[in-house]
Parts: sequence; structure tokens; C-alpha cells
Amino acid sequence: MPRRSRKPPPLVTLTTDFGWEDAYVAEMKAVLLRDLPDVRLVDVSHSIPPQDVLAGSVTLERAVRVFAPGTVHLAVVDPGVGSERRLLVVAISGQTVVCPDNGLITWTWRRHRGARAFELSWRPRDASDTFHGRDVMAPFAARIAGGARWQKYCGAIGDPQLLDVAPADSVGEAEVIHVDHFGNATTNVPVELIKGSRCSRIEVRGHPVPLRRTYADVSIGEPLALIGSSELLEIAVRNGSAARELGLRIGDRVRFV
Amino acid sequence: MPRRSRKPPPLVTLTTDFGWEDAYVAEMKAVLLRDLPDVRLVDVSHSIPPQDVLAGSVTLERAVRVFAPGTVHLAVVDPGVGSERRLLVVAISGQTVVCPDNGLITWTWRRHRGARAFELSWRPRDASDTFHGRDVMAPFAARIAGGARWQKYCGAIGDPQLLDVAPADSVGEAEVIHVDHFGNATTNVPVELIKGSRCSRIEVRGHPVPLRRTYADVSIGEPLALIGSSELLEIAVRNGSAARELGLRIGDRVRFV
Amino acid sequence: MPRRSRKPPPLVTLTTDFGWEDAYVAEMKAVLLRDLPDVRLVDVSHSIPPQDVLAGSVTLERAVRVFAPGTVHLAVVDPGVGSERRLLVVAISGQTVVCPDNGLITWTWRRHRGARAFELSWRPRDASDTFHGRDVMAPFAARIAGGARWQKYCGAIGDPQLLDVAPADSVGEAEVIHVDHFGNATTNVPVELIKGSRCSRIEVRGHPVPLRRTYADVSIGEPLALIGSSELLEIAVRNGSAARELGLRIGDRVRFV
Repeated sequence: MPRRSRKPPPLVTLTTDFGWEDAYVAEMKAVLLRDLPDVRLVDVSHSIPPQDVLAGSVTLERAVRVFAPGTVHLAVVDPGVGSERRLLVVAISGQTVVCPDNGLITWTWRRHRGARAFELSWRPRDASDTFHGRDVMAPFAARIAGGARWQKYCGAIGDPQLLDVAPADSVGEAEVIHVDHFGNATTNVPVELIKGSRCSRIEVRGHPVPLRRTYADVSIGEPLALIGSSELLEIAVRNGSAARELGLRIGDRVRFV
Repeated sequence: MPRRSRKPPPLVTLTTDFGWEDAYVAEMKAVLLRDLPDVRLVDVSHSIPPQDVLAGSVTLERAVRVFAPGTVHLAVVDPGVGSERRLLVVAISGQTVVCPDNGLITWTWRRHRGARAFELSWRPRDASDTFHGRDVMAPFAARIAGGARWQKYCGAIGDPQLLDVAPADSVGEAEVIHVDHFGNATTNVPVELIKGSRCSRIEVRGHPVPLRRTYADVSIGEPLALIGSSELLEIAVRNGSAARELGLRIGDRVRFV
Repeated sequence: MPRRSRKPPPLVTLTTDFGWEDAYVAEMKAVLLRDLPDVRLVDVSHSIPPQDVLAGSVTLERAVRVFAPGTVHLAVVDPGVGSERRLLVVAISGQTVVCPDNGLITWTWRRHRGARAFELSWRPRDASDTFHGRDVMAPFAARIAGGARWQKYCGAIGDPQLLDVAPADSVGEAEVIHVDHFGNATTNVPVELIKGSRCSRIEVRGHPVPLRRTYADVSIGEPLALIGSSELLEIAVRNGSAARELGLRIGDRVRFV
């Protein structure tokens, strides 16, 4: 559907734990729109549970997976705001993530090769002590999205802070890392590991769960495991909630049987 | 307020049960923005209760009622994803709806004359088995909104799948079909039927409720019935919740007395 | 980051108690986009508790504080719709607010000098009796944002309706006026009053709370008071919820000790 070949306007996504009750999300957007009037803004989620860096990390990675090169992702789950925690800029597949260095980049870092991390040292003079999402990260994200030079404000660093969660290298390491809105439980098992195994069934919290292609392959109300849309093994209940019906929680071990 | 006469950029609305906790909504938007960089996106609702096709249907119809010709509505409440359920494209008053053929179109189909339904047979090669909203419906909605030819991928069909709910033809058929955020209960009684009746009162769950023009026509805390902003009879409690205070539920019969 | 000097497209923000379950927000946007195809829309909040004019007022003020001149704010918490309550247009720092005259402007009016209030007397012929946000305020906000003359539809008035809440002039008047998504409690104490006092501690609901610069200045789980990002005194618990852990509520008195 080629409509025109000129460069599309900048695109910034937002992933936070700010909720929708207050003006916080809009305050970040005000800054982005002030600095970049034609920016296209996409909310990924503002319903990350407060201060839940792991949930933010898994959700952010899904956005990185699907957006086009040039996209800037602004991710703010930032319980350490005002402390000495660093701010990060991460370059990944032609996209850029701006976020605090507290583990929020973990899942993106572990699932995508070739990411490079930088420490953002730029601080505007009038930044508040409590809202760096609005006062530091948003204007810097605008700068990157607008195509301005940003590298001079950033020094390359080695590994950023990472949470203790990683894609499973073997079936022995499989665990639940996320529970979504529908009660589907995402595991850390990538599609490659499934395809290489001969298992046709997993076990979680004592429940045997068959491996299937899609929800409709089992009866309504029955559990199944399948390759989810982020190319990880997921545990679901057809037209139901696996989290509720199987009692699943983050960290639950998954056995291949 | 004529600002310019050139064609406005494409407009796509989204109605889903995806919630806001995860990246699912943003993933659909990534596809729409990739294929149609200048698209204007409007969220109708992503808080349809999971798999609640009736609620999605009533909410979608309100969007169809108010948006301008040319709008494309992408509606995804899709418990049957991956099964043999069809996908629909529905042309209605110069607008287009893309959705699964599972009853989601019901209320739009029944309230707007002249709708035509097509089965969407196009499937991209790399579509997932679990997220047709992102992998099939979103790119096709972009195609339609961008003005590309889409009819060759679609065959006209007769009636789509419809839920067993319809506008009341007589006062004997009146029932509650939706409860909104404020606890107002929408019925299936269209304005025409009210205007033709001489009733000044209804009864629901044993509560007598007077027919009035607007909330302010009764005292605070008192129930009333009125023509709501979608031209259906609604039952409300002034500055309160009719659902909670009168115990109303979907399917409750409404008597005209 | 000067990208171009031409006038940016119009910008309208939305603050309501409509929730996200229904199509109400989208219906207002449909009107705005119909009248102003290139408008940029920003959701401030649609999760104001139903009919909670004070919460809406505090949240709206945060948006006014941060958006650029030219912005139009459409704010609809409107339990009196259909009654004789007036509609307001308020000009403030080059921005404009359109809202019902029920106290929703209170916190903006009290925190920003030089605001001028007008009564909006324009009513479109086909406006509904129950949804003036969509049928009256949205089209008028589009008119203002589009740069059309609007003054002829509005007469200057004196003070609008105001709630009984105001910035504290002395430490004796300090109280909690808002609780946010994180459980942080915002007070009515402006930064100037703190800076002029010699207090290093406050007391609320019997809890002594130290004044600090930012969250990281106390241990995790400990309470603190600080200047929040809207330049008011806030009471927080580091990585926790002050509302829950200290039992804070709107109206709680705050003592300086």
C-alpha cells in the first residue's frame, strides 16, 4: 500500500506504570508534542502494576518486536527516580529505547541481539526531582525521534542492569514470567526450544497441559499450551483464564513431560 | 469551520477486549501505522469484558453511529481465533467494519439499514494462529482505510452470524442489553417506539421508573428512564448507578405501565 | 529542536469521568475529528471517578500547567447535564478550557492568575439532552482550537462556580486534596509556603512524616513529604502507597511540626 515515499513523521511509544487516573501520561505527551509537533504517539501500556519492572520489561519487548525501525520507545517504571540510578538509551534493530537503568530493558536485551546501551547524562536545568519521565526522558526521546544528534549526551556502557530472568536454554529452566489481561501465562520458553523438543505435554502446578497449535484445538474451558504471538510458550484456558483456573503465578516452574 | 477541502487522512477506530495492561493494542497500531503512516487512530474501547461479544457489539454500534463516512472500524473480540470462524468486512453508510464473524456485528447490523457483508478470505503467509487482530484484520483495515482495492479478497455473503438480540418492535419485547460505566442500563427500545407509546412509566425488577427528558428532571438518587444519546431507552439513577441501586442486569425485562 | 516554524496543528486534550468501557470518549473525538481533521488529541484522564468534580479539577489543572499556549482543554465531569447549569469557556495563559460550570475549573482558577471566564450560550439545534460533552462542548472546542471566532457566542462572567478548596495561605490550612494512582496524597500546600516555613516534618493522621527532596531520601517502605511535580506538597511512601499505608483520605488535615 505505497501511499508516498517521503519519510513518515516521528513515532514515539509510551510504556509506564502511571495508570490513567491522573494527568501524568498527558504531561509526558505535552513535552513530546511541544518539542515535536508532528510526532505520532502510541500508548503501549500505562497499566503496568506500580513499580513492577518485570511486567514493564516483558510488555516493552512486545512493542520493540513489532514496531518499525525509527521508532522511539519511552518506558518509565521508575521507583528509583531521584536516586543515583542511571538513565539509559538503548539502540536496538534501528529502534531506540529510553528508560531508567533498573532492569526495565531486561527482556528486550535478552531477546534481541546486537542491542547497544548508553548512559544518558543530559539533565535539563529545571528538571523536577520526582518526574524524570516528563522532565528528562520525554524531551530526550523527542530529540532522538526528531533526528537530532543525541550521542554526545550519552556514553556507551557495558551491560545495563538486568533482572534475573532469561529465555530458557533448556526445558529444565522453563518458568512463567508474565500473566496477561486474559489470564494467559507467558513462559520464558522461546519457540525454537519447543520446536526442538519432542514433548507434547507440559505440567504446571500439578496440572497436565497438552501442547496445541491454537485455542480452538481444545474444548471450551480446557487448558492448553501453545506458541503465543510473541513466539514464546504460553499457557491458556480456552475462553477462560489460565491464571485463575490453574492458579498460575509469576515464577511457577513449567515441566516438559 | 472549513479549514481545507482536501481529503482528510484515513481514520481507523479500534474496539477490543484486549485491556490496557499488555502491548496488544499497540501491536495492532504498529501494523496500521507501518502500512498507513498518516492514519488517525481512535480507541473506542479496549475494556470490553473478555470474550463478551454482546458488549462489544453494542459499543461498536455507537461508534458507527457517530463517525463520518470513510471511517474504518477494526473490532476484535475474538474467542474463536484460530478456529474456522470467518472474518467479516461490512460496508455500512460509507463506513467499513472489519471483525470476526461471531456476532460482533449484531447491533450495528440490526440498527443500520443497507449494510452489506463480505467474507474476508485474504490471509498473509506469516499470520500467527492466535492474533488475527494484529496479523490479518489490522493490515486489511489499513488497506481499506488507505483507499486500496479490497473487494477482490472478499466475497459477498448473506447474513453474518447474529446474536439473539434485536431492537424491540413492540413494548412487549423490551429488555436491558447493556450496562455502561456509570451504571446506566441501555435497553433495546428505540426512540421511535417510545414516541409512539403513551406510557409515562416503566417497570423493571419490580421498580417503577418514570419516563423523563433528562437526569435533572428527577431528584438526586431517584431513578428515571430517558432517551439516551444513542437513541435508545435508558434507565438511570440521577448522580448514581441504576445497575447497582436497582440491581439491573443484561436480559432484564422492561415493562411499560 | 526547531523542525519547522509553521504553526503546529491544533491540539485538544480530554479530561472526563467517562471510563474506557464504552464509546463515549470516541464519540467526542469523532466530533472533534469531523470538524478539525488535523487535530491532535491527547487523553488526560477518563478515569476521574464518576461525578467527582474535585478529582477532575485537580487533574485538569495539571494539564493546564504543562501544555503549550494554544491548547484547548475539553473537560467533562457533568452530573448536571440537561439542567440549568451553565457551560464555561475559560481563557488562561493562552490556553482555553471548555467545561461545565460546576466547580470543575476550581483548581485551575485558583492556581493560575489572570484567568477570564465566559458563559457559552451557543447550543446546536440537534443537541441531545444527556450528552453535551459530545453535542455542545466538543464542537465548540473544535471551533476554538481551529482558530475560528468564538467570542460572539460567549459573554464574560465574574467568578465561575468554585468548590470550597484553595491553595493554603498558611500552614494552618493544609489538607489533602487528591490521592493519585500510586497512593501519593497531594495537599493544597504550594511550594512557596514550604520554602517560607522552617518545618522539617509534618503530621497527618497521627503519623509523623519527614520533609525530604525525593523518594530515595528515605528507606523503602518509609513515608515522606516532598514537593511533587505539580509544585504542591505531597505525602508518599517510598515504593509504596501512602494512601493505603497511612490511611490517608481527601480532606485529611496536615499539621506542620
